[in-house]
Amino acid sequence: MSTAPHFDRVALVGVGLIGSSMAHGMRRARLAGHIAGYAHTPEIVERAKKAGIVDSMHDDLASCVKDADLVVLAAPVGAFADIAKVIAPHLKPGAIVSDTGSVKGVMFRDVAPLLPKGVHLIPAHPIAGTEQSGPEAGFAELFDGRWCILTPAADADPAAVEKLKSFWEKLGSQVEVMDAKHHDLVLAITSHLPHLIAYNIVGTANHLEQVTNGEVIKYSAGGFRDFTRIAASDPTMWRDVFLNNREAVLEMLGRFSEDLTDLQRAIRYGDGDFLFDLFTRTRAIRRSIVNAGQDSAAPNFGRNKDKS
Amino acid sequence: MSTAPHFDRVALVGVGLIGSSMAHGMRRARLAGHIAGYAHTPEIVERAKKAGIVDSMHDDLASCVKDADLVVLAAPVGAFADIAKVIAPHLKPGAIVSDTGSVKGVMFRDVAPLLPKGVHLIPAHPIAGTEQSGPEAGFAELFDGRWCILTPAADADPAAVEKLKSFWEKLGSQVEVMDAKHHDLVLAITSHLPHLIAYNIVGTANHLEQVTNGEVIKYSAGGFRDFTRIAASDPTMWRDVFLNNREAVLEMLGRFSEDLTDLQRAIRYGDGDFLFDLFTRTRAIRRSIVNAGQDSAAPNFGRNKDKS
Repeated sequence: MSTAPHFDRVALVGVGLIGSSMAHGMRRARLAGHIAGYAHTPEIVERAKKAGIVDSMHDDLASCVKDADLVVLAAPVGAFADIAKVIAPHLKPGAIVSDTGSVKGVMFRDVAPLLPKGVHLIPAHPIAGTEQSGPEAGFAELFDGRWCILTPAADADPAAVEKLKSFWEKLGSQVEVMDAKHHDLVLAITSHLPHLIAYNIVGTANHLEQVTNGEVIKYSAGGFRDFTRIAASDPTMWRDVFLNNREAVLEMLGRFSEDLTDLQRAIRYGDGDFLFDLFTRTRAIRRSIVNAGQDSAAPNFGRNKDKS
Repeated sequence: MSTAPHFDRVALVGVGLIGSSMAHGMRRARLAGHIAGYAHTPEIVERAKKAGIVDSMHDDLASCVKDADLVVLAAPVGAFADIAKVIAPHLKPGAIVSDTGSVKGVMFRDVAPLLPKGVHLIPAHPIAGTEQSGPEAGFAELFDGRWCILTPAADADPAAVEKLKSFWEKLGSQVEVMDAKHHDLVLAITSHLPHLIAYNIVGTANHLEQVTNGEVIKYSAGGFRDFTRIAASDPTMWRDVFLNNREAVLEMLGRFSEDLTDLQRAIRYGDGDFLFDLFTRTRAIRRSIVNAGQDSAAPNFGRNKDKS
């Protein structure tokens, strides 16, 4: 008995790190009869063709999404409104329209109003990535063991939600379903604020006059280099995340700044107990993350394995 | 022709991650005729004995440093004054007294005034470490390819400086010599501020009510987990760093906060160009660090090698 693919045709609108990893993952698990890819520049279309990650590459959205049972917006969230406008008339009735964006409210604000009736909007966010980007950066294992969050509306079709859920499970993920607003708040603290802080500290280091850039780089193993990895993430993607999750990010940033003021005061007035207590509590959180299988227990992220 | 060891006798005052790694490294390169270790609690003395990392373990400072040609303070910098007071009368004439502290001004403030004449004070700081601690955490390769900064006074004995420099080179490090004050400023941005920020953000996440700790841990792969590694560093060591490099840390923190205010304003008013420009500049710094051999080029610190 041969097994039918999960979807006959999947359209990847965007073939960067996430889109290309999905393509690799779908092939690994034979999830799609045909994978169509779209890129918004001829250069990326060519690179994706050369990488051979999809069955057909398109430079126009209409032909990419035509007949697709699943359409995945794997582009910066700031482009979603424009994409939705163009693809809406070409969507197959009954198709699932999903995405991989790091902010979920935007799907309901920018995409939902433009979709024809009979199409299922089911936003998704795989919590996975590296600091690299582009169609050559993807790999099938990216989603293995990582969480993928679906944020369907309360009245979404349960069968469509289930179909997308099992699709992500077959890509290797564990799937959680939650409200979009809650998602945007949770990710503001676990992802958006960390990125913001990393970008900021790397920026601060970049324009110090008393310390040269050469020294910043030379002695970065003292901690700074950990931040630079995150601060090397895709600029367009992250600009759009901050612009489209403004309220939650500003709320978390406000809390962060309040806490930082406390910490600053403790240093200024030499309150060693305050520092010791905080540093002991934060150590416990690291243990929980390692115990939950969400990071490697290897010291230094395992860097010392290859002496770097 | 047999080669004489670099030092006949080395005393390690402290056998935690750094001290024990030095012990392993000295054995690897046969740098010491005898390695004596000291720990301030019977428990650590026992653990170090069990780990078999030194030739003799001592629970009193006097017998540990007696006859040593090199004495290394590998303890939290806040303990240096007390240690110096006890060891001073027992130091061998001509001995080098060094350390591994992350702050260097403290050696001149707390240790130098207590040392007898004829003993060479040469502070050192190996820019290496992991988030683990204790006598079992050390390994010989920790210093390979990493920088070690020496901060001798302007009138330090050149032969003693050279002897310590080649010692660290034989431990695998590249050695740089600079002024203690400049060291403390450079490290404030490349190490102390990153640790402070990481401790703070993990603390903020820890007391959010709208988001559960379970969710923070579950979705930490979105960026947060990178910070938790640093925020799992030894609490005593880091308390002492902040208390003993107060001015430079507060100066860097002030700059960081100013920059963060700008970034906050850009998000609030939707200034996408500001964000995009910053995120593009920070990406370039990551490339410089990788090119300088100060971090792995592997995406995600190479975590995906073991699927974590």
